[in-house]
Amino acid sequence: MKNFDINEDPHRRFNPLINEWVLVSPHRAKRPWQGQNETISTESLPKYDPTCYLCPGNVRANGVSNPDYKNSFVFDNDFAAMKQDEIIFEEDIKHTFFKAKPEQGISRVVCFSPRHDLTLPEMEVADIENIVKTWQKEYTDLGNIKYINHVQIFENKGSVMGCSNPHPHGQIWAQSSLPTQVEKTHNSLKAYYDKNQKTLLEDYVQAELKAGSRIVIENDHFVALVPFWAIWPYETMIVSKRAISKITSFNAEEVKAFAKILKQLTIKYDNLFSTSFPYSSGIHQAPTDGFDHPEWHFHMHFYPPLLRSATVKKFMVGYEMMGESQRDITPEKSAEILRQQSEVHYKSAVK
Amino acid sequence: MKNFDINEDPHRRFNPLINEWVLVSPHRAKRPWQGQNETISTESLPKYDPTCYLCPGNVRANGVSNPDYKNSFVFDNDFAAMKQDEIIFEEDIKHTFFKAKPEQGISRVVCFSPRHDLTLPEMEVADIENIVKTWQKEYTDLGNIKYINHVQIFENKGSVMGCSNPHPHGQIWAQSSLPTQVEKTHNSLKAYYDKNQKTLLEDYVQAELKAGSRIVIENDHFVALVPFWAIWPYETMIVSKRAISKITSFNAEEVKAFAKILKQLTIKYDNLFSTSFPYSSGIHQAPTDGFDHPEWHFHMHFYPPLLRSATVKKFMVGYEMMGESQRDITPEKSAEILRQQSEVHYKSAVK
Ligand SMILES: O=P(O)(O)O[C@H]1O[C@H](CO)[C@@H](O)[C@H](O)[C@H]1O
Ligand SMILES: O=P(O)(O)O[C@H]1O[C@H](CO)[C@@H](O)[C@H](O)[C@H]1O
Repeated sequence: MKNFDINEDPHRRFNPLINEWVLVSPHRAKRPWQGQNETISTESLPKYDPTCYLCPGNVRANGVSNPDYKNSFVFDNDFAAMKQDEIIFEEDIKHTFFKAKPEQGISRVVCFSPRHDLTLPEMEVADIENIVKTWQKEYTDLGNIKYINHVQIFENKGSVMGCSNPHPHGQIWAQSSLPTQVEKTHNSLKAYYDKNQKTLLEDYVQAELKAGSRIVIENDHFVALVPFWAIWPYETMIVSKRAISKITSFNAEEVKAFAKILKQLTIKYDNLFSTSFPYSSGIHQAPTDGFDHPEWHFHMHFYPPLLRSATVKKFMVGYEMMGESQRDITPEKSAEILRQQSEVHYKSAVK
Repeated sequence: MKNFDINEDPHRRFNPLINEWVLVSPHRAKRPWQGQNETISTESLPKYDPTCYLCPGNVRANGVSNPDYKNSFVFDNDFAAMKQDEIIFEEDIKHTFFKAKPEQGISRVVCFSPRHDLTLPEMEVADIENIVKTWQKEYTDLGNIKYINHVQIFENKGSVMGCSNPHPHGQIWAQSSLPTQVEKTHNSLKAYYDKNQKTLLEDYVQAELKAGSRIVIENDHFVALVPFWAIWPYETMIVSKRAISKITSFNAEEVKAFAKILKQLTIKYDNLFSTSFPYSSGIHQAPTDGFDHPEWHFHMHFYPPLLRSATVKKFMVGYEMMGESQRDITPEKSAEILRQQSEVHYKSAVK
């Protein structure tokens, strides 16, 4: 019998945002790896690629030419997962097992830069500010459409994350329903707010700042941290200090501070394994259903798959799919490692 | 305005086992793919590999030699995610955000065969029966340990599923808590049983047999089907027709019938893309907490990542992680394609 040591002993942690547990196995990071290695492309890209369907002036699959854009550029996804068509539908309530509903939505692609060879960490803060403003415009425009109640802004970066084009871009899927993960978060935020008259993340950020051990970067308006309940090895979350429910409520200073922390965090990621660090990121914020959402608190998730090096990732497979998410290194250790990374990008440091 | 056509229009489907929705985009299967291709090994393996730590007689990382086993062989995982140590722990209930609990558990590896080069679809039904009996024994032995309340039997097959050794094997993670996914299923099964005095899956299987369109294989005791709410392109579930709560309640005929359907299903999988088909599979069954579980109904999930070919998989990334699971081909179409596959393995057909 020994006393519980959270840095050494296997344990479960609770995620109050979605009410789920994660299994943490600190000692397991030492196990050898003989499994699959990812191939990470190290070729340097041209500033402009004539075969890229996202570069300015080029023609897309549907025959339309991209404009000669200078900052960011947004267009409707040619292979959208949802359609805008209105569908006539009568719900058959007798179907206990075969419950289905049509879903209306719009998918857009957001090019972050006309430059084919740049990623977020290599852009100027002013350019990232431009992306933030584009996200604000899209959240407003899409959110104003009558049947759109949720706007999901996200980025898949790197081929290991299913991204098929290295040209820097993200996506937006806007739709009538709250997606499953967002609905879970919504319910938790709502319950907390109703009880405490404060947002869950407002109090959480304060508790994390006090604890210190999971903070990666802090500025006047935002904190980047490894959540206590993170499932991916180097998962992080950027949270606003103020209880801001949506990106369109940022003031000018907050837009700047957010752009800056985005750059700092992604530089640290790239420096970690000296590679263009793959991840899926996404913003969670208030639904666009026309109601006020004082319970919502802006945050952005980063889910990177890498665990040990540029080529060895964490597989979320058998146990994780059937049982629950499992991690091999503590969030505190990951935060420490990320904190130690330089804020100068390894590529520019080499020069 | 048009009438809803479930085979053509984007829609969401509801999974009553875990109370979550999935987004279905039937039209999207047509989009071109320029992304990452998996490397699938086609080299033929030796019957015995002197460097394999799972082959009979070989020495493992910890210096222990494997016995000269003839059927299946079980040992404690040398790099277990949980430990058996009893931990002294006082819960700090004031921690709203930092909730953690030590977790006790045992991880085992189950070698399916002494042959390095065989996989389930290539084994004799009698050999698979042996594996089923091994699972029964492990469920009993582990379940009898006082602090073990859940026994998760699973297999990661293929390097794309994080499996680092092609020697046919699965794993068992047994632990004190119900893992997140199992707890969700448990709650749904319990609510249904309390209301209907029948198991949810008993009624579901009957509804599916009546509908017919999602059935892949049926025998006297089991059905293999693509669930109405499947998230992976070729996801399937093997369900017992009778309400059996756990693998140890199978009668002799059911053991045979289960072994047989396992072989048939995995042959169809291999034949689909003429490859050793990767997947994670896992058995969901009653907790081993000492209580009766009439609400539980034995089922086995198969989550295969492939979508279009032996090298192109479905990526569950940005939208799927932030929003909800999304699929590009309807479950009915997948079931049809699987049904059409021969029950003779492509390798033996070639000979
Ligand atoms: O124990 P293994 O086979 O080395 O590990 C594999 O399966 C485990 C259980 O699903 C996962 O946690 C690992 O990420 C995966 O690589
Ligand atoms: O739209 P893309 O970039 O082709 O597709 C990528 O992102 C989507 C949204 O996360 C996923 O559904 C796809 O599986 C993935 O390949």
